[in-house]
Amino acid sequence: MTQQAIGVIGMAVMGKNLALNIESRGHAVSIYNRSRAKTDEVIAEHADRRLVPTYTLQEFVDSLEKPRRILLMVKAGLHFIGTGVSGGEEGALHGPSIMPGGPRDAYDLVAPILTEIAARAKDGTPCVAWMGPDGAGHYVKMVHNGIEYGDMQLIAESYAVLKHVLGLSNRELAEVYTDWNQGELDSYLIEITAKIFDRKDEKTGKDLVDVILDRAAQKGTGKWTSQSALDLGVPLPLITESVFARVLSSLKDERVAASTQLAGPEAKPFSGDRKAFIAAVGRALYLSKIVSYAQGFAQLRAASSEYDWNLDYGTIARIWRGGCIIRARFLQDITEAYAGDRSLANLLLAPYFRDIAANYQAALREVVGAAVAAGIAVPCFSSAIAYYDGYRSERLPANLLQAQRDFFGAHTFERIDQKGSFHEAWN
Amino acid sequence: MTQQAIGVIGMAVMGKNLALNIESRGHAVSIYNRSRAKTDEVIAEHADRRLVPTYTLQEFVDSLEKPRRILLMVKAGLHFIGTGVSGGEEGALHGPSIMPGGPRDAYDLVAPILTEIAARAKDGTPCVAWMGPDGAGHYVKMVHNGIEYGDMQLIAESYAVLKHVLGLSNRELAEVYTDWNQGELDSYLIEITAKIFDRKDEKTGKDLVDVILDRAAQKGTGKWTSQSALDLGVPLPLITESVFARVLSSLKDERVAASTQLAGPEAKPFSGDRKAFIAAVGRALYLSKIVSYAQGFAQLRAASSEYDWNLDYGTIARIWRGGCIIRARFLQDITEAYAGDRSLANLLLAPYFRDIAANYQAALREVVGAAVAAGIAVPCFSSAIAYYDGYRSERLPANLLQAQRDFFGAHTFERIDQKGSFHEAWN
Repeated sequence: MTQQAIGVIGMAVMGKNLALNIESRGHAVSIYNRSRAKTDEVIAEHADRRLVPTYTLQEFVDSLEKPRRILLMVKAGLHFIGTGVSGGEEGALHGPSIMPGGPRDAYDLVAPILTEIAARAKDGTPCVAWMGPDGAGHYVKMVHNGIEYGDMQLIAESYAVLKHVLGLSNRELAEVYTDWNQGELDSYLIEITAKIFDRKDEKTGKDLVDVILDRAAQKGTGKWTSQSALDLGVPLPLITESVFARVLSSLKDERVAASTQLAGPEAKPFSGDRKAFIAAVGRALYLSKIVSYAQGFAQLRAASSEYDWNLDYGTIARIWRGGCIIRARFLQDITEAYAGDRSLANLLLAPYFRDIAANYQAALREVVGAAVAAGIAVPCFSSAIAYYDGYRSERLPANLLQAQRDFFGAHTFERIDQKGSFHEAWN
Repeated sequence: MTQQAIGVIGMAVMGKNLALNIESRGHAVSIYNRSRAKTDEVIAEHADRRLVPTYTLQEFVDSLEKPRRILLMVKAGLHFIGTGVSGGEEGALHGPSIMPGGPRDAYDLVAPILTEIAARAKDGTPCVAWMGPDGAGHYVKMVHNGIEYGDMQLIAESYAVLKHVLGLSNRELAEVYTDWNQGELDSYLIEITAKIFDRKDEKTGKDLVDVILDRAAQKGTGKWTSQSALDLGVPLPLITESVFARVLSSLKDERVAASTQLAGPEAKPFSGDRKAFIAAVGRALYLSKIVSYAQGFAQLRAASSEYDWNLDYGTIARIWRGGCIIRARFLQDITEAYAGDRSLANLLLAPYFRDIAANYQAALREVVGAAVAAGIAVPCFSSAIAYYDGYRSERLPANLLQAQRDFFGAHTFERIDQKGSFHEAWN
C-alpha cells in the first residue's frame, strides 16, 4: 500500500485549504474528517488533486509513513498543544503564517513541509518557526488574534473620526487608506480597508460599507487574550477595549434607543487644516498601533516567563511579516527592535519606537481631544494615550489607592523611603 | 449541654469580627478555626465575650441548635454558595452590607440574625437581602468589588488631574474632597480620601500620602469581574481599565526607567478659571462614576439572565447604601431609578442619570481633553466618555469591522436593509 508523507484531520475550511496547499507543493495528503460526508465532499470537489480519503482513524493512521506527520485542524484551545495558523481561508490555501508549539523533535519532523507551505515574507524568509514547548504556538496565535482585534478597532476609530469630524466620503476614505498603505502604516488590514470603501453593493448600488450592519461579531480569541492578560497581571487595556467595543457594537437595539435619549455635544464644523488633521489621524493610528503591540509583546513576555517557554519575540515578529492577517511593514521594525535588544522590557523603549512616540504623541493627543470634544467614541485611541502616559509616569496616583486600601481594609502599604509593609491607625 | 443559635467557621479578620458583632447583639456564638491556636487567641483576646470555642467540626456542629445556622467565613470564590460581606474589618464588627445567596429557605433561617448585624442605611433599613439562588450573593459581592476598583481609580485620576493640572497641595485637596463629600459625591471613599490628604507621617513629618509607594496591590475580585464580563459578553471597560491601572502601577521599576526615555507634552501653566476647573473635575468624576455603575449593573443584568437568578437591582443598590466600601448617597438615586423601572436596560437611561449626563458630559470632555493634553494618564475618565459616546451612537464604525472580517475570513455580515447573513466575493 502506498503511504502518504502527511495527513490532515479535520476538513473544515482551514484543514481543507491546508491539505490543498500541501498537495499543491507535490505531496499526496491523507485526509480524515469526523463525518464521512465532509470527506467525500472534499474529494468530490477536488477530484483532480492527490487527496487520499480515509474514513476511520485506524485507516488514516495506516495510510501514513512513519514517523507519522499529522496536522490536527480542529478548534483551537488554550490548552491544546499544536500549531497556530493565521491567514484565513486564503492564507491556508496559498501560504499562512504558522506558529507551531509542542515538543521540538516533533516539530523538526514536520518542519520541512511546514516551511514549504508557509507564507514568505518580502525578503523570502518563510513565516514559520517553532515557538516553544506545550501550548506556546497556540498562545502566540491567540495573542496574534488579540492584536488583530486591536488593529481593526483602531482602524475603525480612524474611520469614525475622519468621517464624523471631517465628513470624508467613502471615496475620500478609500484614497486616505490607499495613501497610508504606501507608508509606515503599510499592512494587509489597511489595504483591504481601502478596497472596502471602494466597493459598491450590487443590490442597491450604494457603497457596500454603508449597508453593512454595525454589529461586530467575535469568535472568542480576543476575549481569551484579555482574560489571560488579567490572569498574568500584565496591562492589556487597548486590546481589551477593542473586545468591549465589539460587544458594545452588538447592542444595536439598545444603542438606537439610547441615541434618542442621551445628549452629546453640539456639532461644530471643522475649522482647522483638513490635510494636517488627516495626517494627524494617521500618526495617531500608527502610535496607537505601536502601543497595542507593546502591550501584546509584554503579554507574550509575561506568558513566556510564567510558563517557561523562552519565547523569541524577534522570531514571532518575523513570522508575522507575511501570511497572517496582521502582516505589516512595521513588523520588520519590531523584528529589528528585538534584534537590537532581545530582552527589551517594552517595545516603546526601542529607539525606533521611542522616537516615533516622541514625534507622534502630540498628534494622538490632538485626535483624542478632537474626538472626545465632538462626541465620537475612540476607546482604543484614548486607551493608547492613557497607557503611554501611565507607562512613562515615574509617579502615578496609586499611592492614594494604597492609602484607601489600608484605611478601609488594613491591607498595608509600602513606603518610598524604606522597605517593608506599613499600616496606619487611620481611625 | 447549652447550645448556641449560631456559629462562625473561620477566625480570620472578617470571621472574628462578625462573631463579635453577633455576640454584641446578645447571642452567644460558637467559633471554630482550622488551626486551634487561632481559636484560642480569639478567646483569650475576648475573654469577656460569649464566644464558645470548639476544636473539631464535630464539636462545632454539636454545639449548635438545630437547624444549625453557620457562617462559613473562608476565602470567597465564584462558585461558592454563600454570603458576600462588604465593609472591611470595621464593617464586619459594627455592621456590614450583607449579600446572601443560596437556597431561599436556608436564608430565611438566618435572616433574623443577619438583619440584626447588618448595617443600617440612613433611613434605618438594614443592608441585607436575599440576592438569589446558587452563587448569586458572591457574584453580587464580586461586582461590588469591581465597582469599588473603578470608584477608587476614578478618585485617583481626579487627584492626579487636580495635582498636576492645577498644582493643588494636599491641604487644598483635602478641602476639595471634604467639599465634594457634602454634595452628590457624598460617599465613604470620598470621605476617607479627604482624611488621607490631611494625615501627617509620624516618621518624617511629611504628608503621609506622599511617602506611600505608588504601587497598587489587588486581591483578584476586580479581575474576576472583568473576566466574567468578557465571558458574558457585556461591556465593562471602565472597571477593566481600573484593574489594568493597578497592574500598570505595580510596574514601578519599568515606569521609573521609561520616565526618562519617553517624551511627553511641554508643561504649560493652567490659564483658566481654577474654581471652575475644580468643579468640572467633580462633575467628570460623578458622571464617570455613573457610567461605571451603569456598566456594573448591566453586568448584573447579564449574569441574572445567564444564570436565572432573577436579581433585583433596586434591592442591590438599597443594601449597598450602608456598611460597604462603596456606600454613597447616589445609591439612593439608583434605588429610585429601579423603583421607577425595574427592567431598565441601562442606568444611564433613567431620567435622573440621563439628565446628569446631559449636564455633565461637557465637563467630562473638558477634563479628559485637559488631562490628555497635559500628559496625565486618565484611563477611566477616558473610558467613561468613550462608553457614553459609544452607547449613544446609533451607528458605530463596526460595519467596517464586519466588512474586514468577511474580507479576510468569509465570516459574513448582516445588512441594514434586510435580514440574513451575506458574503461578498471581495477578491
